[in-house]
Amino acid sequence: MSNYDQLISHYQTINHFNHAQAMLGWDAAANMPAGGNEARSNAMAELSVHVHRLSTQPQLSEWFNNAENETLTTEQTASLREMKRQWLQATLLPEELVQAQSKAGSKCEHAWRTQRQENDWTGFEKNWKEVVTLSREEAQIRSDILGLTPYDAMLDKFEPDTTTVSLDVLFSDVKTWLPELIEKALAKQQTESIIMPSGIYPTAAQKSLGLDIMKLLKFDFDHGRLDQSVHPFCGGVPSDVRITTRYDESDFVQALMGIVHETGHARYEQGLPKAFAGLPVGEARSMGIHESQSLFFEMQIGRSKDFITHLLRLSKDAFNAHKDPVFTEDNLYKLYTRVDKGFIRVDADELTYPAHVILRYEIERDLINGLIEHTDVPEVWDEKMKATLGISTKGNFKNGCMQDIHWTDGAFGYFPSYTLGAMYAAQYKATMTQTVDIDAAIKSGDLTPIFQWLSDNIWSQASLHTTDELIKRATGETLNAAHFKKHLEGRYL
Amino acid sequence: MSNYDQLISHYQTINHFNHAQAMLGWDAAANMPAGGNEARSNAMAELSVHVHRLSTQPQLSEWFNNAENETLTTEQTASLREMKRQWLQATLLPEELVQAQSKAGSKCEHAWRTQRQENDWTGFEKNWKEVVTLSREEAQIRSDILGLTPYDAMLDKFEPDTTTVSLDVLFSDVKTWLPELIEKALAKQQTESIIMPSGIYPTAAQKSLGLDIMKLLKFDFDHGRLDQSVHPFCGGVPSDVRITTRYDESDFVQALMGIVHETGHARYEQGLPKAFAGLPVGEARSMGIHESQSLFFEMQIGRSKDFITHLLRLSKDAFNAHKDPVFTEDNLYKLYTRVDKGFIRVDADELTYPAHVILRYEIERDLINGLIEHTDVPEVWDEKMKATLGISTKGNFKNGCMQDIHWTDGAFGYFPSYTLGAMYAAQYKATMTQTVDIDAAIKSGDLTPIFQWLSDNIWSQASLHTTDELIKRATGETLNAAHFKKHLEGRYL
Repeated sequence: MSNYDQLISHYQTINHFNHAQAMLGWDAAANMPAGGNEARSNAMAELSVHVHRLSTQPQLSEWFNNAENETLTTEQTASLREMKRQWLQATLLPEELVQAQSKAGSKCEHAWRTQRQENDWTGFEKNWKEVVTLSREEAQIRSDILGLTPYDAMLDKFEPDTTTVSLDVLFSDVKTWLPELIEKALAKQQTESIIMPSGIYPTAAQKSLGLDIMKLLKFDFDHGRLDQSVHPFCGGVPSDVRITTRYDESDFVQALMGIVHETGHARYEQGLPKAFAGLPVGEARSMGIHESQSLFFEMQIGRSKDFITHLLRLSKDAFNAHKDPVFTEDNLYKLYTRVDKGFIRVDADELTYPAHVILRYEIERDLINGLIEHTDVPEVWDEKMKATLGISTKGNFKNGCMQDIHWTDGAFGYFPSYTLGAMYAAQYKATMTQTVDIDAAIKSGDLTPIFQWLSDNIWSQASLHTTDELIKRATGETLNAAHFKKHLEGRYL
Repeated sequence: MSNYDQLISHYQTINHFNHAQAMLGWDAAANMPAGGNEARSNAMAELSVHVHRLSTQPQLSEWFNNAENETLTTEQTASLREMKRQWLQATLLPEELVQAQSKAGSKCEHAWRTQRQENDWTGFEKNWKEVVTLSREEAQIRSDILGLTPYDAMLDKFEPDTTTVSLDVLFSDVKTWLPELIEKALAKQQTESIIMPSGIYPTAAQKSLGLDIMKLLKFDFDHGRLDQSVHPFCGGVPSDVRITTRYDESDFVQALMGIVHETGHARYEQGLPKAFAGLPVGEARSMGIHESQSLFFEMQIGRSKDFITHLLRLSKDAFNAHKDPVFTEDNLYKLYTRVDKGFIRVDADELTYPAHVILRYEIERDLINGLIEHTDVPEVWDEKMKATLGISTKGNFKNGCMQDIHWTDGAFGYFPSYTLGAMYAAQYKATMTQTVDIDAAIKSGDLTPIFQWLSDNIWSQASLHTTDELIKRATGETLNAAHFKKHLEGRYL
């Protein structure tokens, strides 16, 4: 057996344990009663340790060295590159640091759940100090090994090959036009009337409607299912993708669009190439590309006028609401494109969302690079919120810098993915329009041509190319914020 | 660390992987879409290989030898005995035989699924020959190592310390009175009228009723849940027990009693001692003792007149059937104690069930001990069916010897557990009556005193004692078929 084949076999073994881990994680969120938590956590920790052991086995180093001198096809070369990337990620941090981070992160996150509710910055800050210190240590080690700046080395975990230099260009562009666009959209919106949902929308009806929408979006029910959880997510494995949503019986708006969003994630996973199933090269390219699929489904398809027409038809039947004035094309479209300057990122609309992300990006970049300290964060947050959305979070920690879970356990470098995803999605749309009549496809209810484009250009490509290559092959250029601007102006002006 | 402690730690590690395996198995039956099967099977096979590797690690032999000379408490001695028992089970067969059996069993079982429908004995017999040959080989190896007869060595997998000698005594006793008792019950039944369910009983109502019944039976919902699957079972882990049932909208009878049955299995698991969680000594004693719990719930509690009164009250509400003549105390009791001489074991009632089990026991005993050949089975089956239930299965293979899944992959030695469980349950009842007013407890709706007895005598004892010791401590004597006879006579005469 060649060393390349040894590696393939080894990474398939790892994949089997990751399969177990993924399903246990989904089950813990979707099914498990609270009393099952301790045994589950122990089982999942054991699986993690085992996967880490497999991922850092001493002979891998030799296999990688030898495999690089073996004769490989282009695809095998890409496969080797991605296995090596995962191996490097698994081996570059000393085990003691990983353990210290896991401990400090768990402690900080656990306490945060009550500290946030109590607006207790002082208590949070004490735990968070250690998380930030260890993350900076991690960033420095990654930086030394990868030859990147500390923050870029953290970005690399979620967005390989994306750098501060490119993000600064993209995001400073957005900052030149976004605040004005938000103001214009709000001014336009003020001249319009809207009817908010005020009925009872039973969970069973919302679920059945959600399943209809998933069918319209060609979710493959032979390879996945829809369930409920407190925080909606897309989990499972490519051959069995588990998406979840949550239902609010007084409002159907969020659950339905949540299902559209998660279906985008799911179809990416379901569309990954079978030939590389279970191998790193067969996995999704990055968090940003993953988000580009969910946001293409949510923003480019889901909130389009033609899709809203389908939503209207299906909702009226599901809720037996043929006479309810909430359910008109015009009103439903307004509900799904409403703009509001609020404190909370996860509740933000399409237009203000990037402001929340850019704020976090700038803070975590400077924090990891040592330009600010963790105690500076509340003040910097307040300043930036005032500058971009014109609202103050002074003393309001729980709706300010304490609102997200990400930083509590040190997931620095993740936030940019959300807005990168939105930008990629707008760029796909601009290219796709040249060969696909998108509006006609949505209107007809047969969205196949759209999905075929996504499959050809993104899903089937998995991690065969770097992100920049993938985007260039799909759209003819690397990421360009102009498409995003044009999309938002088209919708909100 | 002592060698005993090394073993404890090692078996806890194994338990974490078994946890993953149990949840993946439950998920495959209760949730997984068909398209997820291939990846799931691969992941579960990998986990099996890993558990087998951990269970047969070379240093275990030395740890066991040394631990036996360490100073241990009584409980630790029991714990060591049970770890050693599992180690022996894992190591005593050569790997090639296990693999050959797995292959032949999968092939035979898979083909059986269509062969049974087509009544294709000739096709089945070709595959089954290999399964039987390999099982005899297994029995011989177990026999040589354990010093038991070949069939007793197979029994030992499911019912440690139970032997053909004891089963022959118990079952030949049953055979002296069962056929006559069945005839008398049928004659009595013929004089009575019964109204069969003929309405529509919606799945949602059946499920909600099932949950109410589980509450009455004090199922711990913080450590378990109820779901649906094609074949009802009790899975998961003791801290998170997953029971399933199936619903037939034209008949509620089976689903409800199925839930009572699985709740019995579940409460045993939920009641296992926390102090030994994850260790062999903390597991259920045997298949027969497990079945004694489900059958105590189903036969001793569930089909009692006082419990039927609760069922009636809850069902009337759930199905809004206050005027339906099916729902009277008398009629519901008749439905749940109806006797019928049929071909199929899984559809059999309480009274004829033992006849089905004893027939299988006698055939598999003689088959494994080499007294008959696999080609003799249809004829022997027909003779025994005629002798016990007076019905012929000549040429009717699908409703005869091809009806069960057990033999298709070589699970010889399992069948006796079902009737042992029914007998144990009747014997508990006879003892419990001396200190607990069982009828009054059921009537009151607070069954705590009954569950306390089961917890004290069975659940909390896990595998601390051998089966005979366990039963003697609980009831003052080893298994005695007289209690079973008395119970059946009381109900059916």
